[in-house]
Amino acid sequence: MTSSRMNGADLLCETLLANDVDMCFANPGTSEMHFVAALDRQPRMRCVLGLFEGVVTGAADGYARMADKPAATLLHLGPGLANGLANLHNAKRARTPMVNVVGEHATYHLDYDAPLHSDIESLARPMSQWVERAASADAVGERTEEAIRAAYAKGGQIATLILHADAAWNETTKGVPQPIAREAQKQPDAALIREAADALRAGKTTTILVSGMALRERELALLDRVASKTGARLMAQQANGRMQRGAGRVQVDRVPYVIDQAVAKFADTEQVILISAKAPVGFFAYPNKPSSMLPEDCRVIDMVELDTDIAAAVAALADEIGVAGVEPQLAPRFTPEAATGKLTPEGIAVALAHHVPADAIVCDESVSSGRDFFRITYGSEPHDFLQLTGGAIGVGLPLATGASIACPDRKVVALQADGSGMYTLQALWTQARERCDVVTIIFNNRRYNILLGELKHVGAGAPGENASRMLNIDDPALDWVALAKGMGVEAARTDTAEGFADLLQTACSRPGPFLIEALI
Amino acid sequence: MTSSRMNGADLLCETLLANDVDMCFANPGTSEMHFVAALDRQPRMRCVLGLFEGVVTGAADGYARMADKPAATLLHLGPGLANGLANLHNAKRARTPMVNVVGEHATYHLDYDAPLHSDIESLARPMSQWVERAASADAVGERTEEAIRAAYAKGGQIATLILHADAAWNETTKGVPQPIAREAQKQPDAALIREAADALRAGKTTTILVSGMALRERELALLDRVASKTGARLMAQQANGRMQRGAGRVQVDRVPYVIDQAVAKFADTEQVILISAKAPVGFFAYPNKPSSMLPEDCRVIDMVELDTDIAAAVAALADEIGVAGVEPQLAPRFTPEAATGKLTPEGIAVALAHHVPADAIVCDESVSSGRDFFRITYGSEPHDFLQLTGGAIGVGLPLATGASIACPDRKVVALQADGSGMYTLQALWTQARERCDVVTIIFNNRRYNILLGELKHVGAGAPGENASRMLNIDDPALDWVALAKGMGVEAARTDTAEGFADLLQTACSRPGPFLIEALI
Repeated sequence: MTSSRMNGADLLCETLLANDVDMCFANPGTSEMHFVAALDRQPRMRCVLGLFEGVVTGAADGYARMADKPAATLLHLGPGLANGLANLHNAKRARTPMVNVVGEHATYHLDYDAPLHSDIESLARPMSQWVERAASADAVGERTEEAIRAAYAKGGQIATLILHADAAWNETTKGVPQPIAREAQKQPDAALIREAADALRAGKTTTILVSGMALRERELALLDRVASKTGARLMAQQANGRMQRGAGRVQVDRVPYVIDQAVAKFADTEQVILISAKAPVGFFAYPNKPSSMLPEDCRVIDMVELDTDIAAAVAALADEIGVAGVEPQLAPRFTPEAATGKLTPEGIAVALAHHVPADAIVCDESVSSGRDFFRITYGSEPHDFLQLTGGAIGVGLPLATGASIACPDRKVVALQADGSGMYTLQALWTQARERCDVVTIIFNNRRYNILLGELKHVGAGAPGENASRMLNIDDPALDWVALAKGMGVEAARTDTAEGFADLLQTACSRPGPFLIEALI
Repeated sequence: MTSSRMNGADLLCETLLANDVDMCFANPGTSEMHFVAALDRQPRMRCVLGLFEGVVTGAADGYARMADKPAATLLHLGPGLANGLANLHNAKRARTPMVNVVGEHATYHLDYDAPLHSDIESLARPMSQWVERAASADAVGERTEEAIRAAYAKGGQIATLILHADAAWNETTKGVPQPIAREAQKQPDAALIREAADALRAGKTTTILVSGMALRERELALLDRVASKTGARLMAQQANGRMQRGAGRVQVDRVPYVIDQAVAKFADTEQVILISAKAPVGFFAYPNKPSSMLPEDCRVIDMVELDTDIAAAVAALADEIGVAGVEPQLAPRFTPEAATGKLTPEGIAVALAHHVPADAIVCDESVSSGRDFFRITYGSEPHDFLQLTGGAIGVGLPLATGASIACPDRKVVALQADGSGMYTLQALWTQARERCDVVTIIFNNRRYNILLGELKHVGAGAPGENASRMLNIDDPALDWVALAKGMGVEAARTDTAEGFADLLQTACSRPGPFLIEALI
């Protein structure tokens, strides 16, 4: 392609490709048609359609968590971006790199307050660390490079580029773009590493709290050896973008979701060393309960800055402590006794421990019903575990879709609560279209179970008419087998442990999307 | 209820009810549990659950368009609001009054950057004319009153109240609220009315362009008589919140969507008088096409301010012109010849002209496929016609749901394109749950048809692999009968005109939700 034939949209596409961003999750509209035409001229870019923007951004999140590089998204003006914001929120909390391209009216058309006009920056900023406009064809290349640089910065960020229609359709004088030099990750701060090591050696009750890149297999093994050597406790954040676990890997607990349990867990903690994690706080505030999960006088050492090379920091800490000769404690392969009778969340977890194949990717948005999974599957075949990181429900099905597209040779298992699954059920269609190798398990309890628990906590007693109408979703009962069929995904339903194990085994042994509606 | 027992959440609920806001569309979360408990203590408030926030806000829009008063919504923090923003955008463009209650963390919890924390104001402002926080229990009443006042102001506004959890759960010292005095609508500006009348009498080619409350039966009849008397043309905005039309009412054309057609339509227009309408502009900008649909030297007279009593303004204009003795031209009942053979969009429109019962509410998000409806149904039984006002697709099914809840004794017919229907298909579940009397017609063409047309316009030629993958939704084909069944709504599919007419007649003659998948 010669530069004389490029318009701004072509330049955007070529700049993304020059920097190895070759996946675009999209739901375009009229204002993005020139970018669609540019993508059509450039088959190296893979375009995946989502039938709702929450699917688009959630899939881009799942893709990046597994590919360790950003995908692009294509969204239609303010409302299209708005539909994708909840999953951008989750992606931002997971420190996922992402480059959003949001179409915008032609620059001169803004004065006319056309029906779809809105303040895109105001919408984008809460869920993006970087927001800029490309207002001319020539500016598109540089802006796109800045967006890619921003996406990779500080351990992963959401970059949102607002692309004016005339910047897309006008010809550019710029040539074919070259790959940009990205800022290298910071080397670990020796003083901070020493401070953490000194603290670990001080004989105090210490927790090493980790998230992000510290949850990969190699780093967890090193940190386990550090913990063994120093008597510290190794623990993961409550919700994490990606965690490597299962047989042959370090068994690591997570901070409990329930505030009272978490406070009890940290009651005797004198020091917390954070590695790519945040100091643990309550997901919500409750009357007469603390916001922080840590004791008031607990010392907190934040060992790494956001843009630090985490693997190097973990290695430096292990060096400083001296872990030679300390073996990591790795989980043995363990399969619990098979469950029988009426299907329960625990029965589902037991079947998963048996049948989830090695190297699977488990995406968890099972909310209240899936808490057994983590406890029961320490000794499952090794797998990556992806969570709802920002609490904005509706990420599960899109996340699984994107993870599968990043890793087509690995089985993806989605643990999906029914209430949150309904938020972005359109992802099933993309799974069917892209032949994603995803087994979706719907935990169908026909209620917002977590909220019924919370209602009890606020002392409201048994739910009356209005509360029941807002927290039970049993009238009518959702038929997930029909919903899946409606989007081209094969599905089956079961309410027994044996039936579930059979279905799971079958689904795991054949390729392509399959949904199991688990009545619990 | 005595004041000593009220908390902030009770006060909010009582303030809404004191001001006749007695409908709450909701999807609550943990931070809203005290408000849920308050709603549970107050059965006068009707709570309707949506399984996604786009359903919640779209239904509140449909409700208010038909009830001529605001509903409340209940949304969960920034991401819950974000999910509802696209339909708030549409509601804002329709000048729909609405009071959103967005739960927020307890005031003191904000410092902790808990996972669900985000900048709610930044998210809310683009789609709300009024945004405030209630940060203490005592402030809740006054803030809620301001929100209701704002919702009714300027012809209808979106008011978003951010409710801190501790403002909800703390006790208030305030007593039971009294109804507020709302600002009266402004009387029409006599000088503006005279200016419009003078212009109408000046012998120039004039269009009276109307929207909003000027599209009610009585006002249209008056305006038709004004137009007859003065030789002006009466025309409606392209997209309108609600329009009364059909047999026995004035037949009024709308501004065309396609820019070239609209420019041609206004080519000889010397003057435009706007009544609750906006000067017509292109939905999008296109290379070498104008943004405004009006000739450059066209005079524009904006006859009413936003907060004017539109009925009074229309009456004043008719008085000023003097329409005594001028009869309005009302459409006769007309039923076109029944269609036969393969089902087409036109065949659907013909069947609707036959079978939509008197006093029905027709909600239109049929996008490219439904353009025949308006043309063919001038002489249908009289009905209200509700449109996609802001171009943010995904309003159709929620809009129909809310309209039906506002008017349970009227049949609602939803004209729904397949692509946009997938955005908020969860509304079907609410229809089943609330036994809404809605017939949904899915125009299933298995593509984003409007975008395929736009792609052609940008000169991209026949779509290649990437464009096809983003604009066709035929692989796999969506099975809307299964999707409806999955949410408890009876459904059937047809691809013939005769089959469609039969299904429509049956669906219109029985109560409750029904979905017809029309293969076109």
